[in-house]
Amino acid sequence: MGNKLLLDQGSGGLASHRLVNEVFFRHLGNPILGRMDDAALLPRPKGPLAVSTDSFTVDPIFFPGGDIGSLAVHGTVNDVAMLGAKPLYLTCGFILEEGFDLDDLDRIVASMGQAARKARVKVVAGDTKVVPRGTADKIFINTTGIGEVVASPSPSGHRARPGDVVIISGSMGDHGLTVLSCRQGLAFDAPVESDCASLNHLILKLVTGLPAVHVLRDPTRGGLATSVNEIAQQSGVGVTLEEDAIPVKPVVRAGCDILGLDPLYLANEGKIICILPEKHAAKALTIMRRDPLGRDACIIGRVGAENPGKVVMRTGLGGRRLLGMLEGEQLPRIC
Amino acid sequence: MGNKLLLDQGSGGLASHRLVNEVFFRHLGNPILGRMDDAALLPRPKGPLAVSTDSFTVDPIFFPGGDIGSLAVHGTVNDVAMLGAKPLYLTCGFILEEGFDLDDLDRIVASMGQAARKARVKVVAGDTKVVPRGTADKIFINTTGIGEVVASPSPSGHRARPGDVVIISGSMGDHGLTVLSCRQGLAFDAPVESDCASLNHLILKLVTGLPAVHVLRDPTRGGLATSVNEIAQQSGVGVTLEEDAIPVKPVVRAGCDILGLDPLYLANEGKIICILPEKHAAKALTIMRRDPLGRDACIIGRVGAENPGKVVMRTGLGGRRLLGMLEGEQLPRIC
Repeated sequence: MGNKLLLDQGSGGLASHRLVNEVFFRHLGNPILGRMDDAALLPRPKGPLAVSTDSFTVDPIFFPGGDIGSLAVHGTVNDVAMLGAKPLYLTCGFILEEGFDLDDLDRIVASMGQAARKARVKVVAGDTKVVPRGTADKIFINTTGIGEVVASPSPSGHRARPGDVVIISGSMGDHGLTVLSCRQGLAFDAPVESDCASLNHLILKLVTGLPAVHVLRDPTRGGLATSVNEIAQQSGVGVTLEEDAIPVKPVVRAGCDILGLDPLYLANEGKIICILPEKHAAKALTIMRRDPLGRDACIIGRVGAENPGKVVMRTGLGGRRLLGMLEGEQLPRIC
Repeated sequence: MGNKLLLDQGSGGLASHRLVNEVFFRHLGNPILGRMDDAALLPRPKGPLAVSTDSFTVDPIFFPGGDIGSLAVHGTVNDVAMLGAKPLYLTCGFILEEGFDLDDLDRIVASMGQAARKARVKVVAGDTKVVPRGTADKIFINTTGIGEVVASPSPSGHRARPGDVVIISGSMGDHGLTVLSCRQGLAFDAPVESDCASLNHLILKLVTGLPAVHVLRDPTRGGLATSVNEIAQQSGVGVTLEEDAIPVKPVVRAGCDILGLDPLYLANEGKIICILPEKHAAKALTIMRRDPLGRDACIIGRVGAENPGKVVMRTGLGGRRLLGMLEGEQLPRIC
């Protein structure tokens, strides 16, 4: 194996087979993937399926707290889990640029393997394409996740109801600010780190302990503000958020101030929005706070019947303003 | 909607939502996709699952007989079907270059919708990323397919046995030569066209009519030669192919001669290799030839115990030579 990726290694021929064995099988291998048929054969699932797909194009590919490989696992595991499902399987599609550093590829695939083992998901199918230099930027990864739905009924953005409270599992904006500060070569006083993590174990505890969870969503691209707007529209309800209740780390707030960004529109990769009837809120907070990934969980707002489809922010000074969806693009290639 | 894709349209915010509604939902929409939760909720499948993933980077994106959109549907539908499965669902991940022509995008997504309806698969989840100009070449599409396995046991590259015959469903090299000739601006005497098509309906007839099918595989990247080598290695058997029996269209053979290519190493996107006991060969041929996609089906070789892991070609002159896997890269971005 040389130091740089060659076009040959995506040909489907001998060089591809070697790359698959030396990099992909070594880090992601398991008996299902090892069959090497055109498709993976999986046992009949025990319940309905949750399926999600995401392509990852994050720039830079390595950042504090993660890399494009771990992100590609966490992101899709989380999307599957948000249906109240237990993620079981991932597929991975790699688009690699000719000349890409093979040590970087190895490091990224190793990081995927580690993230997958921690989330207890198996990579069951994969594909690798190598495109000529200049026709892709280093590495893009698609992951598709398949899980068994455990919750019944399954949480959905359509199920928020007046009387529900809105909980988030921790601070907002960490991933977005980290990627942006890396890219701009900015150094803040305190280190900032992506929150990227697989939330499936936490979510399983939540939905098995609390069948009353109405909505679960991870506020990734577009941030908290966009995700809550989507839910308000899908459910035809109004949501009021308390600005002072939304946790944002001081370093993230300071970085956003410098860069003119709003942390509520920045991507998160290890946080959940959980919406459920108020009477179950205390239990949900207890379950979340027991998990290191939900330690800072708190109530940030309420669902009402007024202003259907809208999100209103109550500011610290007692004012109220509409919180819209993300318009324009703050930050391409955030995930 | 403007004429060229903007970065905003991949932001996850308002502009993304508009693009999703105006292009993706319009052509691919169905009630499952329309839920717009983080993952798609699918009913419990009736049997084991077949799952496959593929990223499509073909250049050019439009070619005689298809385009990157129809190819992305056919390719994954076929991979799922090769397990003796009925493909049911697709996910689609788009990576789009800023500035990409929106009319071309619309045409590609329309073509995916048409291919999906014909194959009777539903697009249940999607993702769109827009990357800055120069960091991807126009459009890359990942599709992941999920199907219910119908055949029991399921065909596999590990199941070829001495005494089996090797059937192919039609002519070799059409897709590869078409893409290459487009790219090089070559014009041959007769028109050459990609064979890209979804084979799932044909395969369903084959595996329900003939439970004895041992192996199904579509000879895509690396062509027939590479696929048969893979099977020989997986099953630990030797395969002998008859050169004169392998159908290659005259225009493809002529084009290959001009370009110094071997059609047995060129990608096919609408053909099957079917391996099964000789006593069932006549029935398999009858079933295949009744379907327009299998009209030219024929026996091209035999499986034996000698030369395990190897493929031997018997030439028209009675000679024998080893047929290896593809080495190097004939043609990047063929699919």
